[in-house]
Amino acid sequence: MGKSTTLDIVFTAPHPDDLEIGSGGTIASLVKQGYRVGMVHMTNGEPTPYGDPDTRMKEMRAAADVLGAQVCENLGLTNRVLMDGPEPRFALASVLRKYKPRVLVGIAGRTVAASPDHYQAQLITEATRFYSQLTKWNERFDDTEPHPIDHLVYRPIARSAGAGGFGAQFVVDITATIDQKIEAIACYKSQFPGERFRRLEHYVRSLAGYEGGGCGYEYGELFALPRPIGVTDPLALLGKWPVPSIVDRPRF
Amino acid sequence: MGKSTTLDIVFTAPHPDDLEIGSGGTIASLVKQGYRVGMVHMTNGEPTPYGDPDTRMKEMRAAADVLGAQVCENLGLTNRVLMDGPEPRFALASVLRKYKPRVLVGIAGRTVAASPDHYQAQLITEATRFYSQLTKWNERFDDTEPHPIDHLVYRPIARSAGAGGFGAQFVVDITATIDQKIEAIACYKSQFPGERFRRLEHYVRSLAGYEGGGCGYEYGELFALPRPIGVTDPLALLGKWPVPSIVDRPRF
Amino acid sequence: MGKSTTLDIVFTAPHPDDLEIGSGGTIASLVKQGYRVGMVHMTNGEPTPYGDPDTRMKEMRAAADVLGAQVCENLGLTNRVLMDGPEPRFALASVLRKYKPRVLVGIAGRTVAASPDHYQAQLITEATRFYSQLTKWNERFDDTEPHPIDHLVYRPIARSAGAGGFGAQFVVDITATIDQKIEAIACYKSQFPGERFRRLEHYVRSLAGYEGGGCGYEYGELFALPRPIGVTDPLALLGKWPVPSIVDRPRF
Amino acid sequence: MGKSTTLDIVFTAPHPDDLEIGSGGTIASLVKQGYRVGMVHMTNGEPTPYGDPDTRMKEMRAAADVLGAQVCENLGLTNRVLMDGPEPRFALASVLRKYKPRVLVGIAGRTVAASPDHYQAQLITEATRFYSQLTKWNERFDDTEPHPIDHLVYRPIARSAGAGGFGAQFVVDITATIDQKIEAIACYKSQFPGERFRRLEHYVRSLAGYEGGGCGYEYGELFALPRPIGVTDPLALLGKWPVPSIVDRPRF
Amino acid sequence: MGKSTTLDIVFTAPHPDDLEIGSGGTIASLVKQGYRVGMVHMTNGEPTPYGDPDTRMKEMRAAADVLGAQVCENLGLTNRVLMDGPEPRFALASVLRKYKPRVLVGIAGRTVAASPDHYQAQLITEATRFYSQLTKWNERFDDTEPHPIDHLVYRPIARSAGAGGFGAQFVVDITATIDQKIEAIACYKSQFPGERFRRLEHYVRSLAGYEGGGCGYEYGELFALPRPIGVTDPLALLGKWPVPSIVDRPRF
Amino acid sequence: MGKSTTLDIVFTAPHPDDLEIGSGGTIASLVKQGYRVGMVHMTNGEPTPYGDPDTRMKEMRAAADVLGAQVCENLGLTNRVLMDGPEPRFALASVLRKYKPRVLVGIAGRTVAASPDHYQAQLITEATRFYSQLTKWNERFDDTEPHPIDHLVYRPIARSAGAGGFGAQFVVDITATIDQKIEAIACYKSQFPGERFRRLEHYVRSLAGYEGGGCGYEYGELFALPRPIGVTDPLALLGKWPVPSIVDRPRF
Repeated sequence: MGKSTTLDIVFTAPHPDDLEIGSGGTIASLVKQGYRVGMVHMTNGEPTPYGDPDTRMKEMRAAADVLGAQVCENLGLTNRVLMDGPEPRFALASVLRKYKPRVLVGIAGRTVAASPDHYQAQLITEATRFYSQLTKWNERFDDTEPHPIDHLVYRPIARSAGAGGFGAQFVVDITATIDQKIEAIACYKSQFPGERFRRLEHYVRSLAGYEGGGCGYEYGELFALPRPIGVTDPLALLGKWPVPSIVDRPRF
Repeated sequence: MGKSTTLDIVFTAPHPDDLEIGSGGTIASLVKQGYRVGMVHMTNGEPTPYGDPDTRMKEMRAAADVLGAQVCENLGLTNRVLMDGPEPRFALASVLRKYKPRVLVGIAGRTVAASPDHYQAQLITEATRFYSQLTKWNERFDDTEPHPIDHLVYRPIARSAGAGGFGAQFVVDITATIDQKIEAIACYKSQFPGERFRRLEHYVRSLAGYEGGGCGYEYGELFALPRPIGVTDPLALLGKWPVPSIVDRPRF
Repeated sequence: MGKSTTLDIVFTAPHPDDLEIGSGGTIASLVKQGYRVGMVHMTNGEPTPYGDPDTRMKEMRAAADVLGAQVCENLGLTNRVLMDGPEPRFALASVLRKYKPRVLVGIAGRTVAASPDHYQAQLITEATRFYSQLTKWNERFDDTEPHPIDHLVYRPIARSAGAGGFGAQFVVDITATIDQKIEAIACYKSQFPGERFRRLEHYVRSLAGYEGGGCGYEYGELFALPRPIGVTDPLALLGKWPVPSIVDRPRF
Repeated sequence: MGKSTTLDIVFTAPHPDDLEIGSGGTIASLVKQGYRVGMVHMTNGEPTPYGDPDTRMKEMRAAADVLGAQVCENLGLTNRVLMDGPEPRFALASVLRKYKPRVLVGIAGRTVAASPDHYQAQLITEATRFYSQLTKWNERFDDTEPHPIDHLVYRPIARSAGAGGFGAQFVVDITATIDQKIEAIACYKSQFPGERFRRLEHYVRSLAGYEGGGCGYEYGELFALPRPIGVTDPLALLGKWPVPSIVDRPRF
Repeated sequence: MGKSTTLDIVFTAPHPDDLEIGSGGTIASLVKQGYRVGMVHMTNGEPTPYGDPDTRMKEMRAAADVLGAQVCENLGLTNRVLMDGPEPRFALASVLRKYKPRVLVGIAGRTVAASPDHYQAQLITEATRFYSQLTKWNERFDDTEPHPIDHLVYRPIARSAGAGGFGAQFVVDITATIDQKIEAIACYKSQFPGERFRRLEHYVRSLAGYEGGGCGYEYGELFALPRPIGVTDPLALLGKWPVPSIVDRPRF
Repeated sequence: MGKSTTLDIVFTAPHPDDLEIGSGGTIASLVKQGYRVGMVHMTNGEPTPYGDPDTRMKEMRAAADVLGAQVCENLGLTNRVLMDGPEPRFALASVLRKYKPRVLVGIAGRTVAASPDHYQAQLITEATRFYSQLTKWNERFDDTEPHPIDHLVYRPIARSAGAGGFGAQFVVDITATIDQKIEAIACYKSQFPGERFRRLEHYVRSLAGYEGGGCGYEYGELFALPRPIGVTDPLALLGKWPVPSIVDRPRF
């Protein structure tokens, strides 16, 4: 994996395994289509019951290899106590200014029954899209040049609080890469041993079947945009979406 | 299947196969737990591309047998042109006053890309819960006596418009009856031939995995109540819900 | 204007002038891009204070000519008392089965301070998308063949009740056709005499400036889809949208 | 009570006792302030378990007398089967065109556990505000002249479905008329005998204490507008509202 | 009051008097039913116009005695400047790991016209439910062992911003303990002198009458869960809720 | 411009030019009506591509002069890294306690595609309304006395996330001051050079035309209140709003 190349798109999340579980199918699909994709994990996700930092970093890199991401970085922020503020914004923006992606993907939603890091990561990601383009501040960002990012995309966490009010949602067909996604998650053996992996795989496949089903795909991943999509040719927008015939629809 | 007994709960929907797809796992589970369950289809669901009225009625009864429902009735209203109004309300309420269930379950949501019957069925069901208890109107209801129904429960159609703003939602664990649910759907051979059944089974299992996953179940079905739940002992309410340990949670 | 050709897209609304005010810029833009576009008005919109049926029909056709729509039809339903039900659904679906568009565009929203026809038109349009594909019912639709429509698109009425909960929204750039839109509205001289037209033009331009501004366009029209957009290549979806540089953004 | 005078404001609801329970305090307060107020009940509300049409009409008039309403009319539509459509709209609009109020108040919300008449009454009321101003249709409205109504105001039913998305809400201080409101409700002896009245009074006082409490009033009634309020002097708008000092606030 | 025993449930809020006003009836009811209940106040709530720290602490303990809570603790965080972050999370989680409750109850909502502490307390409480179960971090939590908490429950602040989108809501019947709740609030003489207490009691009784009324109780307190409730037997869930007969319903 | 006088209303926002773009028409209108108005900018808004601190301060004062604001202050907090917390709250509250306004206006909404300062400013403003009235803390506020502010008003940022759930919205007619507003924005030559100003003016006029149009004004600015408006005379509330006749309405 190279490190200083320009990327088309960067996915970010707080803990190694968040990206694979949330967006692994889309990452793999984009790589297959020839795009250059980066994965940026904010923390090492440790400590956890059965993990340790070295193992987790190895698992992270193995998962990125399975998905084919050209770049996989870790910001080294502290797990469990991630808080939005200038420093984590500088850290993430420096990476974005280095790789100059057109699109930044972050998670959305307050997982009130799980880690508070998720919502803080959303706030950090939103701010960082703005920071990436700021002028006269290069010293805050490892002397990188300003880089405006075209689009901020959310990966909403299913059933989380505060994920909503989006301008547009879209579902990426991951039927061809669902197995690759499961394989990438399986790299995190320290996190999902035995029966736990079986349960997670069942849930991840179910969620992908549900999210994809809304657009006629066998498996899909749902994303959201803060604003409506802008188009000149709306029929081209709709035409690219292979609507299933009535015979194939789940309900009618 | 007897016809004049008292029931604990009645499920209703416009077309034969709606109830099996939406609530089949819960119907089967309730029957197993010893409750008396009724299924009331509003129309015969025909015409459809490959079905005909006789075949559809046979499929409907076969599906009810698979689920074990004690009562399965069809109101004989007209498919495709179901409209809320006094007559369909009288028809449904007459059945409710005959079987005297404590709970009535209807579908919720405007399926803007599918049949308009679904939303009209929701309006009819809401009105009928009220009609069931009305006095001095027995002649409108086949001379049945007034019967107040304790609870109106919704089965929200996934991703439909207008399903929301509920007072409470709950998920029924259908892990033990998911196969029975699939078997009941399979009775509708005229509706889901070959590949179409394979796709539907995949979607139905995915949705059940997604809805169940929110409460730690392998498979579940989501329902909703128009008002908050009333309790004297909230710890008993929560205590009955076997929260998965951290090892079993999909995400943490 | 021919009458029996196949169309790419059909726009429908209850009263002549609704389509021009709501979607005129998009209709003109699609025609310019080579698509075949139909306009279907449900009623003649009369009586009104200064109009009469003959004049209104002439204005309707003149406006369609200004926009370049290949087909302009009027269902002849009764203004002011439009109610969702089988008959208006048959009337609209018959036209759709004749012209076989891939996309159907209807208005969305309950204009509680204006005509109740708008919300009824939404319900009729939603149902009609389903009716268009129904088999074994050709006699209800002037002996036309079933035609499945790929997409139902909404044109949400600004500030109306009940318009929301959409799966995705998009804005069509109408900068190049805003003047054509205003010209089409101006055809309705019986509806917008003198000062009234001046005020309406000001409001229509303001709304288009506001809706377009959200996507960096000088003028735009906002549309919505009931479901998320399905994509294989999300970067292509986003890449087609010319995000303005920071210098051109209204706020930063 | 005169019958052909002009009114300032008209309140409407489907069943005699709805208006008193929902808006009785505001009606009494407006009368005290010198406004001319009308109450228009759509049906006679019968049959009910302990009522009959003659008794209910007497109770209705007694309640209007307690509140001091200048006009109290009943449209004579049929209880329990109220459905939105041209005829009930003509009936209500004819009364509005006769009394020419500036403001029309209707209920809002789908009481899914109670009468379906409530939601149909909302749809009828919304449509009627539009019908009231229509020209060239006098014969549909008892030969009355068109009358534009300045404002449609909602009285949202607490906890009902579908009441929301308003442009503005306001609370009327009814501290001085809460007893009059209770007295008006007490006129409906056929509906609220003994213990039932005690429970209703408790609930009505609680709701008024809750709704008033949001604005620092001892008792209040909440209303809503479909659009934002238009003002030239926003400080005058806010200045008329006697905000309680910190010592009087329920929470701080 | 003992201090090191295991508890069934812990209620937490930022200022002494928040818990009594919000959840006092439920706390007293749970104690009566034999549960072990803890109250954890985050700050001493001072300074205020008429209070001082010593008096407020005495009032806090007197109120806990009135309600019968087995444990009453104060985290000693600073009033008026409460901010979510690692330190307050460690403080609250240490108490939870000591008492090992199955359920944690926190407030929900941004009181934009009152103290910013309320929303920060919500964020702290959400994070702490997660912190309570964390392994390999005992030194951050006074050397306590990890303790997974089954349920996070919210007490939504009436009319506050941001309280919504819950998975389920329930109302606890506090008819038998409303007087005890009022008595507990009355312990805070420094906060609610004379007329101010009279107004607060009126508002608190009104809110309890309103919230209870939605489920047929004379007085109730509303709570919410982030996720739907999981059940095996939905009829048992509904059966425990004594729905009032039609004669007792406030409206029908 | 004097500096120690009492003010009627204070508007606050993070960057010089935010207030002019968002509320310039209302500020100018209030001054014309004889009110004393203050503008409080939290930061100097620099660095930006073409600005510098001295220039920006001069532009800020020039803009305040154009609008006629009696007071224009800058808190000197740091642009781009504004974070809610005690210190910025103290800074803003000290100014409020000095000028003692009855009303405080802040921005609302998370501009996820722009500066994170906007949402932090909302949190700071909400907290500050509470801080302004706090007793026994004068030393934190430059030895100023407590001052309770009657109303917190929001200026929602169009299309921003999280702006919603308001108790009431109102639109101020700025038809008479729209040119003054544009002139004030034009003072910020460093921010909006050439073509950029032309585009901004187009968008600002469009937004004002859209927001005003909802209440029948040629140009307006939309504001929101966290709670419903309290009134004694609702007809006076509605009567002050000059509803346009049917001839002037954009749609009917």
